[in-house]
Amino acid sequence: MTPPPPTLAIVGATGAVGTVVRDVLPVRRHVWGDVRLAAGAEDVGSVCRVAGEDLTIEALTPEFFDGVDIAVVDIPPEISAEWAGVAVERGAVVIDNSPTFRRDPQVPLVVPEINPESVSERPRGIIANPGATVMTMIDVLAVLHAQWELTELVVTSFQAASGLGRAGMARLHDEMAVVGGQRDLGMSPGDVRRVIEHELGPSLFGGPLALNVLPFAGSHVGDGWSSEESKIRQETRKILGMPDLRVSATCVRVPVVSTHSVSVHATFAKPIQVDKARQALVEAPAVVVMDDPENGDYPTPVDIVGADPRFVGRMRQAIDFPRTLDLFVCGDNLRKGAALNMLQTAELVAATL
Amino acid sequence: MTPPPPTLAIVGATGAVGTVVRDVLPVRRHVWGDVRLAAGAEDVGSVCRVAGEDLTIEALTPEFFDGVDIAVVDIPPEISAEWAGVAVERGAVVIDNSPTFRRDPQVPLVVPEINPESVSERPRGIIANPGATVMTMIDVLAVLHAQWELTELVVTSFQAASGLGRAGMARLHDEMAVVGGQRDLGMSPGDVRRVIEHELGPSLFGGPLALNVLPFAGSHVGDGWSSEESKIRQETRKILGMPDLRVSATCVRVPVVSTHSVSVHATFAKPIQVDKARQALVEAPAVVVMDDPENGDYPTPVDIVGADPRFVGRMRQAIDFPRTLDLFVCGDNLRKGAALNMLQTAELVAATL
Repeated sequence: MTPPPPTLAIVGATGAVGTVVRDVLPVRRHVWGDVRLAAGAEDVGSVCRVAGEDLTIEALTPEFFDGVDIAVVDIPPEISAEWAGVAVERGAVVIDNSPTFRRDPQVPLVVPEINPESVSERPRGIIANPGATVMTMIDVLAVLHAQWELTELVVTSFQAASGLGRAGMARLHDEMAVVGGQRDLGMSPGDVRRVIEHELGPSLFGGPLALNVLPFAGSHVGDGWSSEESKIRQETRKILGMPDLRVSATCVRVPVVSTHSVSVHATFAKPIQVDKARQALVEAPAVVVMDDPENGDYPTPVDIVGADPRFVGRMRQAIDFPRTLDLFVCGDNLRKGAALNMLQTAELVAATL
Repeated sequence: MTPPPPTLAIVGATGAVGTVVRDVLPVRRHVWGDVRLAAGAEDVGSVCRVAGEDLTIEALTPEFFDGVDIAVVDIPPEISAEWAGVAVERGAVVIDNSPTFRRDPQVPLVVPEINPESVSERPRGIIANPGATVMTMIDVLAVLHAQWELTELVVTSFQAASGLGRAGMARLHDEMAVVGGQRDLGMSPGDVRRVIEHELGPSLFGGPLALNVLPFAGSHVGDGWSSEESKIRQETRKILGMPDLRVSATCVRVPVVSTHSVSVHATFAKPIQVDKARQALVEAPAVVVMDDPENGDYPTPVDIVGADPRFVGRMRQAIDFPRTLDLFVCGDNLRKGAALNMLQTAELVAATL
């Protein structure tokens, strides 16, 4: 007898990532039996249409998880740390998008295209979803690493407002509305900051984002490093299974609504040629090559937001670094960077139940 | 008998850089005798107040240069290639801000804080002013190089709209006016591009800049490299007098009105400590250290636009690269990045006349 299809829970169903989980679900709906939604108190009782079905948002209680086989969770880290254990006790496998469990050696960090086998090694019943900035580049790196052996990575990120969820996107739109049309702004020290903070108060980004770039994302983790930079180093090493990979990252927030970009300087053990690297990426299922800069073809956030693959361009042999490739990659941080990867991982788990 | 003070010409006096030359001149006016202005046909005959004096814009003719001792020139490269020779024939020393002469071994590329002595070696009568992106970081690099010996440089730029002059700034403001307040934009592929190009037509940036980043700046120079990236490598080597310095750059345009930023991963021959590097930069006259990220202190374009120094922050020891420092630097690309450096260089030349 075929077992009944598993029950999926979406926890944080009304957040920026939860909303995309609901958007991405319809074409993947056949995997699942019941789908249940939970969110914060302000949304409990409201009805969402998901894949043609009206679902009522439930409160996050221990009982919510009864009968749930797999829960995809995107809620603030401090809540997620508490509720993951509750969900596991009630019998659910948790796929968590917070940084809380990503470094735990007993928690796999899964990208289905790279380390699908690791979903089975989940002694705590928890699987972590990687950070969205790492997700932007990791598929490209894995494809190149398989053939040329990655040894060093120097990256600079261009991270979108949606990395801070709905509040981040709303704040950027608020700032754009304030400065848009003020043609005298941007030539005097602090004028953009004064106008924005006067209208809107201080920013969750740590400074004005419209007409600016902010060279700090996340929290301070010591020795001058940000949590976003630290995550890039640790999560890249863990996903690729290379605990000694040399990584240095600078993370910068930019005034883009959604979709992260990363400038990558990647060095390999074996001599790498641009043409062969391009061919390997053309053949990779989750990567699209957009690389004809002479004719204006390179990935940009506004062109690829809302799409599933990672888009790579600007592939160049670093002239003075014989085994190094420079490239630029864009990826939707809410979609494959979060929601889609969680659902793909959930499907891998469902196949093991 | 003291010689009469030299005559200064500002060629391209109404452009983005020329305007800043006029803004910066008043406190440096005492060096000069007459000041003459030239610009394109549409501005000839109009009157500009410079340092309390009403000056009439003249046409660019060979006779314009008669009696001019030093001309600071910021006009399109194809015109500048022609007029530099004319000005020299008429007896002027030319300080040119186009890329045209920067690679010529008979033309010095001058940053007064770094290689002031090179102004005297000008067999062609021409001195080149470095590109603004190189200028953003070169003072910081020179200070660190003097003590620790730079060996490798991996950089990613965040270049402002004003790198494309008044037209660039106007276009960004036009785009901001179009998208500002449209809160539904930025979540669907191409929506920002469609709205902007529908209202404004194609962009001089090669794509929409508002709510976006564009990973290509300048023209294509072969093997996938942009002219902006090529300039960073060549000009850094020439200014520092290090023809074999290993440099790799990725240049990205960002929706900032004015002020470039650069993410720098710099490797040295000698072991470098953050504290000592910070102290060396604190003591450097043209550099301001803003580096306490735990308390929100780091440079951003909107906070430092309009200021003379380069502002450096996010200084970190690269964990996996023992002789490497990561840092982030911002500098006003029109001011020290162009106009101020040209006037400082002109003053050095004036002292040699």
